[in-house]
Amino acid sequence: MAVMSRQLDFCLGELAERLELELRGDNTLRIEGLATLQTARRGQITFLANPQYRRYLKDCAASAVILKAEFADECPTACLVAKDPYLAFAKTTQLFDQCPRARVGIHPTACVSPEARVDPSASIGPHCCIEEGVSVGSGVTLGAGVVLGSATQIGRDTHLHPNVTVYHGVSMGANCTVHSGVVIGADGFGFAPSAAGWEKIAQLGGVRIGDRVDIGAGTTIDRGALDDTVIADGVIIDNQVQIAHNVCIGKNTAIAGCTAIAGSTVVGANCTIAGAVGIVGHLHIVDNVHITAMSLVTKSIRESGSYSSGTGMQQTRQWRKNAARFSQLDELSRRIHSLEKAST
Amino acid sequence: MAVMSRQLDFCLGELAERLELELRGDNTLRIEGLATLQTARRGQITFLANPQYRRYLKDCAASAVILKAEFADECPTACLVAKDPYLAFAKTTQLFDQCPRARVGIHPTACVSPEARVDPSASIGPHCCIEEGVSVGSGVTLGAGVVLGSATQIGRDTHLHPNVTVYHGVSMGANCTVHSGVVIGADGFGFAPSAAGWEKIAQLGGVRIGDRVDIGAGTTIDRGALDDTVIADGVIIDNQVQIAHNVCIGKNTAIAGCTAIAGSTVVGANCTIAGAVGIVGHLHIVDNVHITAMSLVTKSIRESGSYSSGTGMQQTRQWRKNAARFSQLDELSRRIHSLEKAST
Amino acid sequence: MAVMSRQLDFCLGELAERLELELRGDNTLRIEGLATLQTARRGQITFLANPQYRRYLKDCAASAVILKAEFADECPTACLVAKDPYLAFAKTTQLFDQCPRARVGIHPTACVSPEARVDPSASIGPHCCIEEGVSVGSGVTLGAGVVLGSATQIGRDTHLHPNVTVYHGVSMGANCTVHSGVVIGADGFGFAPSAAGWEKIAQLGGVRIGDRVDIGAGTTIDRGALDDTVIADGVIIDNQVQIAHNVCIGKNTAIAGCTAIAGSTVVGANCTIAGAVGIVGHLHIVDNVHITAMSLVTKSIRESGSYSSGTGMQQTRQWRKNAARFSQLDELSRRIHSLEKAST
Repeated sequence: MAVMSRQLDFCLGELAERLELELRGDNTLRIEGLATLQTARRGQITFLANPQYRRYLKDCAASAVILKAEFADECPTACLVAKDPYLAFAKTTQLFDQCPRARVGIHPTACVSPEARVDPSASIGPHCCIEEGVSVGSGVTLGAGVVLGSATQIGRDTHLHPNVTVYHGVSMGANCTVHSGVVIGADGFGFAPSAAGWEKIAQLGGVRIGDRVDIGAGTTIDRGALDDTVIADGVIIDNQVQIAHNVCIGKNTAIAGCTAIAGSTVVGANCTIAGAVGIVGHLHIVDNVHITAMSLVTKSIRESGSYSSGTGMQQTRQWRKNAARFSQLDELSRRIHSLEKAST
Repeated sequence: MAVMSRQLDFCLGELAERLELELRGDNTLRIEGLATLQTARRGQITFLANPQYRRYLKDCAASAVILKAEFADECPTACLVAKDPYLAFAKTTQLFDQCPRARVGIHPTACVSPEARVDPSASIGPHCCIEEGVSVGSGVTLGAGVVLGSATQIGRDTHLHPNVTVYHGVSMGANCTVHSGVVIGADGFGFAPSAAGWEKIAQLGGVRIGDRVDIGAGTTIDRGALDDTVIADGVIIDNQVQIAHNVCIGKNTAIAGCTAIAGSTVVGANCTIAGAVGIVGHLHIVDNVHITAMSLVTKSIRESGSYSSGTGMQQTRQWRKNAARFSQLDELSRRIHSLEKAST
Repeated sequence: MAVMSRQLDFCLGELAERLELELRGDNTLRIEGLATLQTARRGQITFLANPQYRRYLKDCAASAVILKAEFADECPTACLVAKDPYLAFAKTTQLFDQCPRARVGIHPTACVSPEARVDPSASIGPHCCIEEGVSVGSGVTLGAGVVLGSATQIGRDTHLHPNVTVYHGVSMGANCTVHSGVVIGADGFGFAPSAAGWEKIAQLGGVRIGDRVDIGAGTTIDRGALDDTVIADGVIIDNQVQIAHNVCIGKNTAIAGCTAIAGSTVVGANCTIAGAVGIVGHLHIVDNVHITAMSLVTKSIRESGSYSSGTGMQQTRQWRKNAARFSQLDELSRRIHSLEKAST
């Protein structure tokens, strides 16, 4: 079970020190929380990152604001000066995180194989199940009901929230966060057709996940068919994403919710894939590609840049007429061509 | 574990009384189940809601029919007269529901923090885990393996099916139903870019869910970044829906399966959002909006009505030609313009 | 907990015998694993199914290759001759599967109703919950944390991986595989509108699943409203698929990841539905239909063949212009018509 004992307020001087930011104003001010520039009140700290919110600064009721040096003079309150206020804000949120810390040790209701190795500093929650050959590193947290299949490896300080399932032979690096409902290492969708129906292709590969990977609730990452599925260091994945067998995701790529990536596709580093995107199998996407929401990617992308598919939204009445014309588009194009020919 | 002891048959008079409907015919008829107008047989009750099924009425083999007064005369069997037969049918199904009721009390395998408050009339299933500071109201049911993070509140008569995960600091009202695999309160997808990779923005908000909210299997509702994610009273949500941090959903809105709503978007009351819709972040959608299946919403909707995007389906051969022309659409449009200019 | 005791190497003669294939070469060669034609090394077996990979055959470093008779002469190594090398490869993978087998018997932490019938050859993992009236067949495996609602039936040799949830009254045939996070039998999304909000339609039907059905991680299959939801024999379903109430899926149909099928739709046999497809409710799709990735199906399909919707992907800059023109498509079409009229 959990322990709640986190410090929830700081004096401004302590915040400045921890965040390594220059303080202008009273370093004894108590800061008990964060809020936006428009809603923050006394006792809270806020931030100005997007210049279009600058107009709210003069009426800000917060006790302190994190902002760039160029705005410090017009700040009516104490401030912390940051080169990148949004990044400083991110670090500040971590100081105020109330996510309860779990108790170190193995809960008596957990089933841990005598042939598993669990570091004594790890926290294993109620009703967890750890199979033989598993290795759980120092500082690891497993929430209630987490299942680790045989021979999986969980790197130090990685946090698996309740009801995560990891199949056998998965390896995960250090400082990862995996949210509830995630399934890692289930069989890829591989079958050979036969006269008698579909013949299963046993999925003999595993899943290799790097360090500092964040995986959102309900996401599924399948094991490879022959080789491994690979998620590189620093990748962040939102909720309900589907990553099929033998996909490789490059370093620091971000994937938003409900995106699906089909088998054997390779996605480069530093890509940003918006929500509900579909990427078909066996493609290669280079580094630094952005794909807009709900696009379907059916061809490899060999040049960095932004890509899209789909149509704009309209009132259904109008849309219906246009969608009907879409079905005649090739014919319309030919008619334009005929007109052009006739007019010359 | 569960107890099955529900009454599974009624005499027609009892049904009429419970449903507060006028009975025409024999009030002693035994009714043991429901079926459609075309498939119902003796001992079953059926309903006529959609007038286009009226033609099946004369041959109906049911023991009784729920219908409007205007059709009662042509009904060959006993009937229950309702102003809204579909609504009366819905209420009838509830009487015949065989979903087993759980035993009151805390199952011995559940782990309940001594600092949690569980009403004695609640039913806590096997292998549940209830952290400190949790409040579980009267008549609440938790299926097997449900996890409630610290300081969550579950209102009276709410039913969480097996393997639901609720993170810390979530509040849920009365008479809600939450299906298996749901995850409420996982971290929103918030990260600040930095030279060293993505810096996590701790998600300090919670999730507030009203009364009579229904949440389908595998749905995920993230906690807010600074403020809460909010689901108002009477909202119904289907399976595998993704609701990102700080989304607000208005009263009685219905969201069909696999829809994804990105961060900070506000959806009004009484909206109906069809399946597999994508709504990008930071939008505002007014009340009484309908969005058709698989549409992508990229702009705020300020007027009630029906909205769509996408194209119609065709045979792949034809579609391919039209889709190719879509990529030339701007050019085609210019060519039409040139022709028009030339012809005047 | 699991037992790992699977044989992981074979001599080539033994493989030939088990797979019923003709061996050409040394039957004493040790085979310890599988790999692709390009990556296989000594001690491994590979296969040549797609003729376009034939060029890799001459440099293949594997100990043996599964291939068609016509390519045997140019094979530099031992080979197994197969009429359908891909199918033979599938069967070979099964021999090398390292998925750990579970121990027979009921784990002491499982909660099994005294009114359930569990075959003594079944394996019930830690923290499972089996309600009254359940029947678990011979050779069945339930991973940790599986919940079986009352009166469910699980056919022989079916394998439910950890954290699968099955509601009451679901029946599943023999030799099925169900991956983690799957939810079968949750309520269909059925509500009647009323002045007071949505009135729940209790879902009185069940789910009937045939033999040899494979269900991927995180998939949800809802129970029927009045009749059952039905999945026929040999159906294969990938991850995060949503199958709504009263859907019927015909024999040997394959459904790729993230596809959603709305209520009461009937899909024929031997269909292949690609990933992220949406199919609206109450449609009828005949046998042998293929639907390409991310298509939306809004009308019944009465003729076998391949169907698609959507647009191609482009650079966002270009796409934006074309998408803008899509919204004028009906008008553009009228302008073409006017030009045609004027030019005659």
